[in-house]
Amino acid sequence: RINGDRLWDSLMDMAQIGPGIAGGNNRQTLTDEDGEGRRLFQRWCDDAGLTMGIDQMGTMFMTRPGTDPDALPVYVGSHLDTQPTGGKYDGVLGVLAALEVVRSMNDLGIKTKHPIVVTNWANEEGARFAPAMLASGVFAGIHTQDYAYSRKDPAGLTYGDELARIGWRGDEVVGARKMHAYFEYHIEQGPILEAENKRIGVVTHGQGLWWVEFTLTGREAHTGSTPMLMRVNAGLATARIIEAVQEITMAHQPGAVGGVGQMKFSPNSRNVLPGTVVFTVDIRSPSLDKLTSMREQIEEKAQAICAELGVGYAMEAVGHFDPVAFDPTLVSRVRSAAEKLGYSHMDIISGAGHDACWTNRIAPSTMIMCPCVGGLSHNEAEEISKEWAAAGADVLFHAVLETAEI
Amino acid sequence: RINGDRLWDSLMDMAQIGPGIAGGNNRQTLTDEDGEGRRLFQRWCDDAGLTMGIDQMGTMFMTRPGTDPDALPVYVGSHLDTQPTGGKYDGVLGVLAALEVVRSMNDLGIKTKHPIVVTNWANEEGARFAPAMLASGVFAGIHTQDYAYSRKDPAGLTYGDELARIGWRGDEVVGARKMHAYFEYHIEQGPILEAENKRIGVVTHGQGLWWVEFTLTGREAHTGSTPMLMRVNAGLATARIIEAVQEITMAHQPGAVGGVGQMKFSPNSRNVLPGTVVFTVDIRSPSLDKLTSMREQIEEKAQAICAELGVGYAMEAVGHFDPVAFDPTLVSRVRSAAEKLGYSHMDIISGAGHDACWTNRIAPSTMIMCPCVGGLSHNEAEEISKEWAAAGADVLFHAVLETAEI
Ligand SMILES: NC(=O)NCCC(=O)O
Ligand SMILES: NC(=O)NCCC(=O)O
Repeated sequence: RINGDRLWDSLMDMAQIGPGIAGGNNRQTLTDEDGEGRRLFQRWCDDAGLTMGIDQMGTMFMTRPGTDPDALPVYVGSHLDTQPTGGKYDGVLGVLAALEVVRSMNDLGIKTKHPIVVTNWANEEGARFAPAMLASGVFAGIHTQDYAYSRKDPAGLTYGDELARIGWRGDEVVGARKMHAYFEYHIEQGPILEAENKRIGVVTHGQGLWWVEFTLTGREAHTGSTPMLMRVNAGLATARIIEAVQEITMAHQPGAVGGVGQMKFSPNSRNVLPGTVVFTVDIRSPSLDKLTSMREQIEEKAQAICAELGVGYAMEAVGHFDPVAFDPTLVSRVRSAAEKLGYSHMDIISGAGHDACWTNRIAPSTMIMCPCVGGLSHNEAEEISKEWAAAGADVLFHAVLETAEI
Repeated sequence: RINGDRLWDSLMDMAQIGPGIAGGNNRQTLTDEDGEGRRLFQRWCDDAGLTMGIDQMGTMFMTRPGTDPDALPVYVGSHLDTQPTGGKYDGVLGVLAALEVVRSMNDLGIKTKHPIVVTNWANEEGARFAPAMLASGVFAGIHTQDYAYSRKDPAGLTYGDELARIGWRGDEVVGARKMHAYFEYHIEQGPILEAENKRIGVVTHGQGLWWVEFTLTGREAHTGSTPMLMRVNAGLATARIIEAVQEITMAHQPGAVGGVGQMKFSPNSRNVLPGTVVFTVDIRSPSLDKLTSMREQIEEKAQAICAELGVGYAMEAVGHFDPVAFDPTLVSRVRSAAEKLGYSHMDIISGAGHDACWTNRIAPSTMIMCPCVGGLSHNEAEEISKEWAAAGADVLFHAVLETAEI
């Protein structure tokens, strides 16, 4: 078994960096706080004898050598970046549990045939720069590096400039590394494991996603002196589209979610009808058919709403991945490890997107999940117990050992 | 008649200060640009022989002496502050037409019994600091100066601090001045005069207003892994309230408007259901009964919507004035002036709030309006013609002359 206390201490130490306002973290990608978190992680990896590689997207690859010079490495990781009001475990648990796996191997004097690479993917959250899982997406050949570098944060700063600014642009060509396998351990971020009282989620699939950014153009006008029938009201169109997203999502139950987290009214003055409203619809389903049907219906309905109100309509997909089926061999290895260790477990579909969803395109990949209190994530109040954290890390340890071969 | 060319040139000169991004202006209250606009106006007033007084709210009072030492002054003005994406005429026309009235009196060697005070009220727009018409509201005894000083802009800066920073906090006790009468000339900001092909709006009434700021508390949670039925979705509640505002307003036709111009999602991340949504509903009517009924229905409906979704509900009135009936004597003086000058005219109700709505509480007040193209205002594309501007200024000149007595 891994050292659950040490894992927990590292989690608490990392949580000191980029503290939030309500007990969580604000360590958004490519901020100074992200840089500081990376340096702490690097020190820990140094102490564990790992060798660092950094690619041109800023992803950190910390290698523990294997015994067979020809064997491809087993990658294990997740991300250290957070939401603006994020929790202490989302992503961080997966990176530090991977480090704990290596620390435990060191303690136990275990050598593996395949090297182990503890990985911290850059910009998983996509909160500052859309889309999410940006660096792993470039790694897997989904996005070009130029596209990634040109992504802008709300202040207009680009990914490429900010990566250079914090000093974490590496030399490695992105995606040049070949993987034997990829494991990612993550909190569930949903309510199922806790409700079912299971310690371990054996992740068989991941939901697909669309992020559709709508830009509605109304006519800026005085809220007081503009008669109702003369308004070109982009705010009203926005309200109707949000309701449509809700209705269409509910009509696709079970196995579909949809909502809006990001919204911008311009000029955003109390007595000015908005000239522009920009917002992003997030829809997901494990079923490609449902996902496609939701997207089509939402776009059709949004266009009709805008046409009726005379509001200008534009949309851009700023994030997308298809539903994922993880590698059956690795999945069953995770299931057996949980079984062997005596942890209660169940198969589960990941509701969130993860870097494993992209690596799965280029190498056998899978995930392990632990419960989180109340299913809450993307909230500073996100919470797990030390025991939950350790149980999943134990499963990770055994599944990785089996794959990396002693 | 006044000098229409000179008035127009001054309008164009003032529009150089705090240029917008689309031909209009961004000269929001208590910004550096506001300070610069005030200095230009002060220079012009100096040249016209006026004496400056500034009160503790930052309102500028530029006096042309009268011949009777006991006669109270006739105040004539409006405001030089703008919306973030405002037009060149909203407010500015009224201040510079008042200056033009004085310049014309100087040209013609006219002396009046009552002094004339050309006035630039501070923070009329309320875009940066709610509520609108803040300085005239303190002047009329509606708000305390402490309340006004503590109002915050979106960056958290207070009115009091920003007024001191730009160096325009005067010594005069606010509201100590007594007025014989107050005249305000303004663009209509609505479509009626243009549609009816009238040069002059004789403003008999003003609409009443409520600005109701809603703060809805949802539960920040992951957009992907949080099942639909577990969501506490403040964004959905917001959408339903916007729709309710629309429906309730339409049910109160004619003579009612309602909409939402300001909106903030927090943390405003694409994959986080908002923890908080703050937005302001703007409702208006010339009928106090309708205004009250709309407000009651909107609050009741908003509470029901939030209760159904489990969303936390709070509201605060951040702006209010009752419908206004302007002084009948001054109103008929405006009507006769238009008649005498041969300008087509009609009675009209002001859709927007104006400083005259507050001064009317403490002194006989009225307004004059000119058309604006397409009824458009609170938009950088706001437009009027030189002839329209001059016609209203002519009417202002004659109505002020009659009131100030030669
Ligand atoms: N795990 C996680 O929250 N990833 C961010 C991408 C997503 O929104 O699913
Ligand atoms: N005239 C004008 O736009 N005033 C601002 C206050 C309001 O919203 O009516």
